[in-house]
Amino acid sequence: MADQNRFEQLVELLKLKGLDAVFLAPSSDLKYITDLDMKPDSRLKGAVVTREGKSFFLCPSLYRDEMEGLNRDMRIMEWKDGEGFKAAFQSGLRQTGIDLSSPRIAFTRGIEAGDMLDAVDGLGATCVSGFELLSPLRSVKSPKEQDCMRYASLMNDKMMEAARSYIRPGVSETDIIAFVVNFHESHGGKPRVPGVSTGLNTAKPHYPRDNNRLVEANDIVRIDSGGWYEGYSHDMTRTFFVGRPTDEQRNVYEIVLKAQLAAEERVRIGAIPRDLDRTARDIIAKAGYAEAFNHRLGHGIGMDGHEAPYISEANDLPLVEGNCFSIEPGIYIKGRFGIRIEDLVMLTSGGREILNHFTKELITL
Amino acid sequence: MADQNRFEQLVELLKLKGLDAVFLAPSSDLKYITDLDMKPDSRLKGAVVTREGKSFFLCPSLYRDEMEGLNRDMRIMEWKDGEGFKAAFQSGLRQTGIDLSSPRIAFTRGIEAGDMLDAVDGLGATCVSGFELLSPLRSVKSPKEQDCMRYASLMNDKMMEAARSYIRPGVSETDIIAFVVNFHESHGGKPRVPGVSTGLNTAKPHYPRDNNRLVEANDIVRIDSGGWYEGYSHDMTRTFFVGRPTDEQRNVYEIVLKAQLAAEERVRIGAIPRDLDRTARDIIAKAGYAEAFNHRLGHGIGMDGHEAPYISEANDLPLVEGNCFSIEPGIYIKGRFGIRIEDLVMLTSGGREILNHFTKELITL
Repeated sequence: MADQNRFEQLVELLKLKGLDAVFLAPSSDLKYITDLDMKPDSRLKGAVVTREGKSFFLCPSLYRDEMEGLNRDMRIMEWKDGEGFKAAFQSGLRQTGIDLSSPRIAFTRGIEAGDMLDAVDGLGATCVSGFELLSPLRSVKSPKEQDCMRYASLMNDKMMEAARSYIRPGVSETDIIAFVVNFHESHGGKPRVPGVSTGLNTAKPHYPRDNNRLVEANDIVRIDSGGWYEGYSHDMTRTFFVGRPTDEQRNVYEIVLKAQLAAEERVRIGAIPRDLDRTARDIIAKAGYAEAFNHRLGHGIGMDGHEAPYISEANDLPLVEGNCFSIEPGIYIKGRFGIRIEDLVMLTSGGREILNHFTKELITL
Repeated sequence: MADQNRFEQLVELLKLKGLDAVFLAPSSDLKYITDLDMKPDSRLKGAVVTREGKSFFLCPSLYRDEMEGLNRDMRIMEWKDGEGFKAAFQSGLRQTGIDLSSPRIAFTRGIEAGDMLDAVDGLGATCVSGFELLSPLRSVKSPKEQDCMRYASLMNDKMMEAARSYIRPGVSETDIIAFVVNFHESHGGKPRVPGVSTGLNTAKPHYPRDNNRLVEANDIVRIDSGGWYEGYSHDMTRTFFVGRPTDEQRNVYEIVLKAQLAAEERVRIGAIPRDLDRTARDIIAKAGYAEAFNHRLGHGIGMDGHEAPYISEANDLPLVEGNCFSIEPGIYIKGRFGIRIEDLVMLTSGGREILNHFTKELITL
C-alpha cells in the first residue's frame, strides 16, 4: 500500500520535528514508506530520507536482489562484507547534500544501538529516537487499512469459536497452541505463537516457557491470540472455564469484564488514553485488586502488534479518527489464577467500532 | 554454564577498555554472564555491570517472575508500563556509585538505538558499541563448550546423510525445509529455518521467500542448515546434484571445493582470518569467478550463529585456541546456478579440528 503520498508526509514530519534525516531500518516503518519487507539481521540495511526529499538505500551486497521490491527510485549505496557499512552510509548522506557538520538524524526501530553508533562515528551528528516519528501517520488507519483490521479480527473471532469446542480436560497447553496456530495458518494468516496458559499458569500475565501442562477439570484456560492477515494485526484474549468456576473466580471475572466494558464505553474521538486506563484501573482497585493489574490497559495495533497509541497512564494525547487499539484489563492473583479479557477497538467515521464479536460473557465448557 | 569467573573477566575487560559500565541487553551476552535467557521486545530490560563490579538488573514489572533464572545477586530496578525505563535505569546507575557526569557506557546487542538514546537522555554519557566487548571471552570456547560444538555439528552431519536419501524429483523446497527442521527437532535440536534452494534459485547466495519450487531431474539442491543443540550452534552447507551435473557445474563445484579445502588447510593457531579469506578468494578469482563470490569466507559461531571471529578481508586478528568458525566459499552465477560448501572448524589443544564429517565430494543422487 506504500505510496508517494506517504513519502511526502514523512518529509513534512522531518521538517516539523527539526530533523535533517531519518534512517528507516528494517521494520514496519520501512515497509510503510518503501514497500520493502525486510528483517533486521547482522548486516545493516535501510533507507535514509532527508528533509529535502532526497533518499538512498544502504544495502549489503548480499541483499542486492531484494531491491526489486523497492517501490521508489532511490540511489543504492552498496557495502561489502569486507568493508563495513560506515563509509557507504556517510557517503550516501554526503550525496544528499545535507550539512554534515551537525545533522540531526532519527533512527526507527530495527537498528541496534551499536550499529547506529558505528554509522555516525566521526560525524558531529545528534541522534534522536525515531520510534514514534511515523506514529502520526501510521496510527491513523486509512479506509483500506481499516478493512484489513476488521478482517484480521474477524478471523480471530472465528478461531475463538473453534477453540471453544476444542478445549477439554486432557489436552495440553501445547495442543491448544498448535490448534490456534493451525487455525490461522489454514485460513491464510501468519500467527505469532499464541499465549496459552491453564490452571495455576494463568496467575502470571505472561506465559510459561514450557507449555506441558494438561487441562484438568475445573481449570481456567486463557488464550491470547495475535498475528497477521495480509500484513495487518489482530490481538484478542479470552478466558474460559472448564467446568464450574469458584465464587471467587466468577467474581474476579465479572470485575475484569466490568472494567473492560467501562473503558470500551468511553472510547471516542478526543478521549484521553490516560482516562481510559484510569477508568478500568479504578474499577479493579475499588474491588481490592489494584496490585493484581500490573500492566497498561492497552496498545495501538496495525502493521505491528504493538504500536501507537498506547493506552496507558503515560499517554495524554487525545484519540483521533483512524486509531485502533486494544482494551485488555486483567487481574492476576499470585500463585492462584488470572483473568484477562481483550478486544480491539477502532475509531472510524462512524465512531467507536469494536472489532471482536466473540462473546465476553463467562463461558463454562 | 555462567559462572562467577565470567563476571570477573567482564569487569577486567571494562577496565581494559576504559569503560565505566556495560548494559547487557537480552542476547547471548546476557545469558553468558547471568544465565538469563531473554528475548528483546518492546519493554527494555537487561543487566548493568560496572568497572567496580557493581551490578543491577533493569526489569519491567511484567517480567519480575523471570528473575528466578538469575544466577547472581543483583539489585532489581523495576519499572512500570506507565513510567518508562529511564528513571529506573539512571537511578540504578546512580546507586552503583559511578560518576554520572560523563560515564562511558557500552551497549551489547539486544537494545535498539532509540531505547539507548532514551536511557541516557540527560546524562553526559558517551555511548559505545559493545557488540564485540565480550568477544575475547566468548570466542575462546572452554572444553565443555567445545564438546557442545562437536555434538551440534555431529547432528548436522547425520541430518545431511538423511537428507541425501530424501531429496528426489517432485519434492518441493518446502518439503526439504520441513524434513531438515523435523530431523533436528526430533533429535532435541532447535533448528532455524534452513536455507534450501533448488535449480535456478541456487544462483543467489540467499534463499527464496517462497519455497514453492519442485525439484526436477538434473537440478542442483543446496541445503544450509543451522540452529542449536543445548544452546550451542551448528551451521553447514552442502550442494547436491540430482542426476548428472553439466561439465560447467562440475567444474565450478571443484573450484569451490578446492577453495574450501585450501582455506581449511591453512587454519592454525596464529593464522590471520584475512589470509584465509584471500586463500579461498584467490583460487576462485584465478578460475575467473571473482565477482561470483560476493560474501566473506566465514564467521565465528558459538551461542550465536554469527559471532567473532569473522573470517573476512577486514579481520587481521590472529586466531587463538578455542576459536570456532565456518569456512564457506561459494560461486553464484547470476540467473543460472550457485554452489556453496560449508564446514565448521575449531582450534583446540590438538590443533585444527573439522567439526563436520559428511563428505564434500560431489554427490549425484
